Amino acid sequence: MVDQKQKKFLLSENDIPKQWYNISADLPTPLSPPLHPGTLEPAGPADLAPLFPTELIMQEVSQDRWIDIPDPVREMYRMWRPTPLIRATGLEKALGTPAKIFYKYEGVSPVGSHKPNTAVAQAYYNSIEGTKRIVTETGAGQWGSALSYACQQFGLEAKVYMVKASYDQKPYRKSMMQTFGGTVTASPSDETEAGRSILAEDPNSPGSLGIAISEAVEIAAQNDDTKYSLGSVLNHVLMHQTVIGQEAILQMEMADAYPDVVIGCAGGGSNLAGISFPFIADKLAGKTNTRFIAVEPEASPSLTKGEFAYDFGDAIGTTPLFKMHTLGHTFVPNPIHAGGLRYHGMAPLVSALFDAGVYEAKAYHQNACFEAAVLFASTEGIIPAPEPTHALKAAIDEALEAKETGEEKNILFHLCGHGHLDLSAYDNYFSGDMVDYALPSEAIAEAMKSVPQIGK
Amino acid sequence: MVDQKQKKFLLSENDIPKQWYNISADLPTPLSPPLHPGTLEPAGPADLAPLFPTELIMQEVSQDRWIDIPDPVREMYRMWRPTPLIRATGLEKALGTPAKIFYKYEGVSPVGSHKPNTAVAQAYYNSIEGTKRIVTETGAGQWGSALSYACQQFGLEAKVYMVKASYDQKPYRKSMMQTFGGTVTASPSDETEAGRSILAEDPNSPGSLGIAISEAVEIAAQNDDTKYSLGSVLNHVLMHQTVIGQEAILQMEMADAYPDVVIGCAGGGSNLAGISFPFIADKLAGKTNTRFIAVEPEASPSLTKGEFAYDFGDAIGTTPLFKMHTLGHTFVPNPIHAGGLRYHGMAPLVSALFDAGVYEAKAYHQNACFEAAVLFASTEGIIPAPEPTHALKAAIDEALEAKETGEEKNILFHLCGHGHLDLSAYDNYFSGDMVDYALPSEAIAEAMKSVPQIGK
Repeated sequence: MVDQKQKKFLLSENDIPKQWYNISADLPTPLSPPLHPGTLEPAGPADLAPLFPTELIMQEVSQDRWIDIPDPVREMYRMWRPTPLIRATGLEKALGTPAKIFYKYEGVSPVGSHKPNTAVAQAYYNSIEGTKRIVTETGAGQWGSALSYACQQFGLEAKVYMVKASYDQKPYRKSMMQTFGGTVTASPSDETEAGRSILAEDPNSPGSLGIAISEAVEIAAQNDDTKYSLGSVLNHVLMHQTVIGQEAILQMEMADAYPDVVIGCAGGGSNLAGISFPFIADKLAGKTNTRFIAVEPEASPSLTKGEFAYDFGDAIGTTPLFKMHTLGHTFVPNPIHAGGLRYHGMAPLVSALFDAGVYEAKAYHQNACFEAAVLFASTEGIIPAPEPTHALKAAIDEALEAKETGEEKNILFHLCGHGHLDLSAYDNYFSGDMVDYALPSEAIAEAMKSVPQIGK
Repeated sequence: MVDQKQKKFLLSENDIPKQWYNISADLPTPLSPPLHPGTLEPAGPADLAPLFPTELIMQEVSQDRWIDIPDPVREMYRMWRPTPLIRATGLEKALGTPAKIFYKYEGVSPVGSHKPNTAVAQAYYNSIEGTKRIVTETGAGQWGSALSYACQQFGLEAKVYMVKASYDQKPYRKSMMQTFGGTVTASPSDETEAGRSILAEDPNSPGSLGIAISEAVEIAAQNDDTKYSLGSVLNHVLMHQTVIGQEAILQMEMADAYPDVVIGCAGGGSNLAGISFPFIADKLAGKTNTRFIAVEPEASPSLTKGEFAYDFGDAIGTTPLFKMHTLGHTFVPNPIHAGGLRYHGMAPLVSALFDAGVYEAKAYHQNACFEAAVLFASTEGIIPAPEPTHALKAAIDEALEAKETGEEKNILFHLCGHGHLDLSAYDNYFSGDMVDYALPSEAIAEAMKSVPQIGK
């Protein structure tokens, strides 16, 4: 018998999943392979060997439905997992909706977001394969924090190239990385060929994610004891996040409610995948009719306005090409506060499921998202990070629609992180100066020209 | 059967305490009454009526052992309570200690500290007695955040005078107060007589807690619909925090371990009281021999170096006088990062129990505390606020002592808040520029001259 007023649904440490769910095994049609940037032929494991440890490359291409989570990774998960699933009784009351709104909250992790779920797994596999150092890039700093923390746990060095504009504007994230033992370098730097070439052109370059990726990859490729790491987009990264959805399934059972709709924000796609893939398994098996919504910022609408095509993963065009929804790899999103959603593409797995009609997609401007966030903070007592305010806004719209129709549906959204280190964004919202950037179709069309013409 | 590796001890919502524990009922000797600042006669409830609602004044002087928590307050507690009790398995391993270290973590509250436990209670009683607005002061901003949040929940306005130096240096705390609907004014302001008189002398005054209190009290005294609120020191405030220790008792039972030592940092005394009073009840009843340690900063050592005497609660000398451990009300602590511990006095209840030998006290410099905090972050994944790093440091010292003696003792300390909004303090520590302020005995002696000569 479920207490109808119960707010938090908590699991025990024994309920931390023992396996990751690999949705590749259940896809209606197989994923198109990544292509080598030079030959445009399918890229094989050998092409990735300089950058990633073998086990992660194997996971990237695995067709096994379940992959065991190594004990040392599960032991690390105990630091913050299982995470709570919470019923938004305060928000429901404020909206006057008959819908039940649930949220899975990953903000309880050491760095305040879902990112460590994959960071500790990646650090572990690197550690057992002899890697001494992992190098990565970070924009706003969430991924860099997670990787720093994870490397510290497994005795690895973490080196993070942080986009210089953020390095200067977000000192708290930099401090967090340092607290967790990471070495943070503003990018572009004079440590790499890529960085020096940018600085030669513009000594005051504010940097970009594309440049930071180039620096990190260069260091990894040149040093045998150093590997590279990515915080989203790739198959194995999304798979590691499925611990979120697996826990949510158990917690929704505790609440005696199966979700009619599952909602996540989508930048690279990993938090959305984490909450939704385990529920999508039920739908692909024909057991449920749940809807799945990917929510984007209007400033970076790869699903709602992009094209499903092969494109580069980075801005410069040095990574393999992935079949994904893309706005063109030269597309530079306007500087919205949800830095984690400012990506030109979308994970191939999410893209394929969107193309197959499993996901719906919608996009919002940031003022509407922060309005939702302030309502949420006042009714639920949690200040969301800018990224999941997009999922929240969609959840609220679903709940208001239910109010119109009287439908008592169950809404589940993913609150993938807290906004304690993003409070300046709230200041910007309260000041009335927050910009909802217009994105003319001409600007998208121009960026789309950078999508390579492959198989067209 | 307790799993020896279990890390988190979680309670259900039904375990949220239904009553506050009023230790006044169990004191070995009754508390000395506060004195009216004008007459120096015992101050009665009528003297406090302009500032506080009746119910809180009654709680302040109550001798009832248990006081029911009103349902609406308990309903609010469900937003973040019960809070977790966690076994610091990672820290234990790093220290190589046979001791078991447990911590009660209040950083999961909406504002990231224990402060809302009393803020929601105070806002509730004000709301049912017709108060429209609560005015308070805040230093670093933790109390102001909690009161803003609590007022928003009960439909009251919150007005916060924030010490100007912090207002300028801690924009994130200000943003949090605004997100929770509070109105924040830099103090000294031109809104009050007190503020204007300070500004007339020094238009660039950085402000002080004493000045901010004066401004808040002036507004409350002059407006019938406005009351004043305090975040520590007073009996009813400490009592509201006993939900912490009551939960911890249940959770230590889950862990099959009774604490041999309970540790909390001590500024005004409320977080220490919260974790320890329910355990002290057992000791006062002769059931246990647990030790209780109050940990202060060397920069503000009211227990370790102060005097047990009547003194004013504020810096200016307008509040009632309390019998407490004090460094003299004119004492201005050096600007350590643990802003919440920079108070010249100590709660009368904590002072009396220290005087009776129930509490031990010790003091640390801040560099040693931050060194402990960085070890804790790396092993437990939580970045502590500067204040509880003091309790943490004492817990580590107890654990290292146990390593020497081989004693398998149970250590419980209170991690009363997270440090997400204090990361600049960690920057200061890593830079090597953090100052361990010397506090010459002459400086204390000079401040002690401000302790009124009453009954000596």
